[in-house]
Amino acid sequence: MVMQRCDELARVTDEPGRLTRTFASPAMRRANSLVGAWMHEAGMKTRTDAIGNLIGHYAGQKPGAKILLLGSHLDTVRQAGKFDGALGVILGIACVEKLHRQKVRLSFAIEVVGFADEEGVRYQTAYLGSKVLAGCFDERDLRRKDANGIAMADAIKRFGGNPAKLKSARLNPQNLLGYVEAHIEQGPVLEHRNLAVGVVTAIAGQSRFNISFAGCAGHAGTVPMDLRRDALCAAAELIVTVEKFARKTNGLVATVGQVHAEPGASNVIPGAAMLTLDVRHQRDSVRLASGAALQKLGRRIAEARQMKLVWQPVQQTASVPCSPQLSRCLKRAVKSHQRAVATLPSGAGHDAAVMARITPAAMLFVRCQGGVSHHPDESVKLADVHTAIEVLVDFIQTLAKENS
Amino acid sequence: MVMQRCDELARVTDEPGRLTRTFASPAMRRANSLVGAWMHEAGMKTRTDAIGNLIGHYAGQKPGAKILLLGSHLDTVRQAGKFDGALGVILGIACVEKLHRQKVRLSFAIEVVGFADEEGVRYQTAYLGSKVLAGCFDERDLRRKDANGIAMADAIKRFGGNPAKLKSARLNPQNLLGYVEAHIEQGPVLEHRNLAVGVVTAIAGQSRFNISFAGCAGHAGTVPMDLRRDALCAAAELIVTVEKFARKTNGLVATVGQVHAEPGASNVIPGAAMLTLDVRHQRDSVRLASGAALQKLGRRIAEARQMKLVWQPVQQTASVPCSPQLSRCLKRAVKSHQRAVATLPSGAGHDAAVMARITPAAMLFVRCQGGVSHHPDESVKLADVHTAIEVLVDFIQTLAKENS
Repeated sequence: MVMQRCDELARVTDEPGRLTRTFASPAMRRANSLVGAWMHEAGMKTRTDAIGNLIGHYAGQKPGAKILLLGSHLDTVRQAGKFDGALGVILGIACVEKLHRQKVRLSFAIEVVGFADEEGVRYQTAYLGSKVLAGCFDERDLRRKDANGIAMADAIKRFGGNPAKLKSARLNPQNLLGYVEAHIEQGPVLEHRNLAVGVVTAIAGQSRFNISFAGCAGHAGTVPMDLRRDALCAAAELIVTVEKFARKTNGLVATVGQVHAEPGASNVIPGAAMLTLDVRHQRDSVRLASGAALQKLGRRIAEARQMKLVWQPVQQTASVPCSPQLSRCLKRAVKSHQRAVATLPSGAGHDAAVMARITPAAMLFVRCQGGVSHHPDESVKLADVHTAIEVLVDFIQTLAKENS
Repeated sequence: MVMQRCDELARVTDEPGRLTRTFASPAMRRANSLVGAWMHEAGMKTRTDAIGNLIGHYAGQKPGAKILLLGSHLDTVRQAGKFDGALGVILGIACVEKLHRQKVRLSFAIEVVGFADEEGVRYQTAYLGSKVLAGCFDERDLRRKDANGIAMADAIKRFGGNPAKLKSARLNPQNLLGYVEAHIEQGPVLEHRNLAVGVVTAIAGQSRFNISFAGCAGHAGTVPMDLRRDALCAAAELIVTVEKFARKTNGLVATVGQVHAEPGASNVIPGAAMLTLDVRHQRDSVRLASGAALQKLGRRIAEARQMKLVWQPVQQTASVPCSPQLSRCLKRAVKSHQRAVATLPSGAGHDAAVMARITPAAMLFVRCQGGVSHHPDESVKLADVHTAIEVLVDFIQTLAKENS
């Protein structure tokens, strides 16, 4: 059922022949309608909020009960896979459906949220949906324009939302029990450990830097090695150093994704080299210390080679730890359905990081083939999806016992 | 005088505001006319051969005497400096002028050659002028077209040459004593040793390779270091290895001038990395062994990282040793005019490499500021030019004694 729904939802796209579903687009409207129908079937009342988040409400035993939020996002990147975002929403509905069929009402209500925007493809600003629910939406973003010159405020109106009511769409934290998001891992750790699901410890913080070395260009044939100041050699030394440093620092990932040598001719010694550096860790102290240590190592390389180094911070995002209480409960559920409990940080950002501002948040990762995401090749196993449903239902029921 | 002439010749250009003088262009015609006039003043008879080489003849004591060739090229790169090529021709004329003023006739004739094309800017094929004189011009090149669609044969005709007579323009090796070219060093060695001139040992051979590593792309946040196959890290390791290897191999220069990471986003682990490698040495055996050793080291890096390596040879050019006899004579002359005799290979190509096919060839390098060439900043010192003239005249007179 979950797999069929992922297939069906993947056919709801703004671009023929490939899956692209961006914020407040016609495809998003059809997606909300389709997913809303599934919510109804699962016994939920649905509503769409001022920015276009689809929310299904499964009532608790008593009116006014606290709410457990389950969800993920319904928008996608361009030429997306079927599971990133969609799986979390559809899994949430499947859990409620199971409870509904068994006629179970809990001490709390469940709301399944399909966020209107997480990827940020249309307006280059991510998490629009969760930011509205968490009350941290930046009103200035309403003036942003998409590639066709349509302002965000207009796009929301055309979609049927109300840009004037975004503030009041904020959820009241006092009514919330927590937020739990299931998502494909987007990495190879669970596959490598041969486990269906894992519990996320934190959404890692990120530091991004633009780095450049300035040496001296020269003729590749006429300048002896000992008279060179080859900026690309300095950059290469730094890339190797970054890799070595990250390998020996537990849990750290550090990546040079772009490199460029100037002037960039095969017979000219590079006089300048530019590179990007992306550093992530679930503990901010480790990430910040690592960034500083790498900068120091970069400076040493530049000094030894008599070069100028520019080390420019581009972005710093703090780590968001998952709720220990909810995660403990999730781990207990995982333990009942899987031979081992994997815990791992999330290196990618998620709606959970935003929702954590107003309520305890936790995440369950589902193994995906080859760690591939943001690509049509995204793939998850049917058995893993079943494990995820069992774990989540188990988790919900345990939580209900604890909260009764 | 030499400096003034370099300045004057630098104003003869095809592009206003910068020096660009390409094969068979209007500026080349004006350059031949200007330089031809200087040759006349220096007591030479001038001729222009079938491809447009300008040749000034300073007769020896007897008719039919052997010929010592002095020269370099009169064409330039785009946005060139004043000295690359021009200096060698103008120095040759200055030497003859000195002999002429002193009414000295030698046991051999001197011909000063201003080659019509060495840089190959217009038809992307270098050494057109010297190839004609050396009898190794490839007739198929006549069909090549320039950026405006003008075939080389037509360009030669328009210039006043004769594409049908290129073969007969070949010099008879039996009439030649040798070829001596003065040229700016285009590197920093003489400047570093604080010497005006140096004697070239050989024009280094060159091996060029295109290299690529194929690993596995991935999310910069979600793939732990130990599960990565980062192709850029492999490329960086190779770049560092190449530098280390070249530093410890006497006389070897090895350069990675271009590098590219795929997909090339700051938050994506590079799945592929491409780089160029340029290896040069004056001894072919060293160059070939170095290329093979570096390939082996590259293979080791790829194997250790479970990557695919493609190592593609792009070009191989053999080294051209300078004539030991002429060079010995040059060194003796240098010894009389400079505190030390510097010998060094030429990492760049020169007309001398082509002329060496038909006659003993030697080269004298003149120090240039910062080793800069192919740039308007090219600069040589007046004192160094005087030293070069003294060395060359001394060399010519010694040679005359030996050949009398």
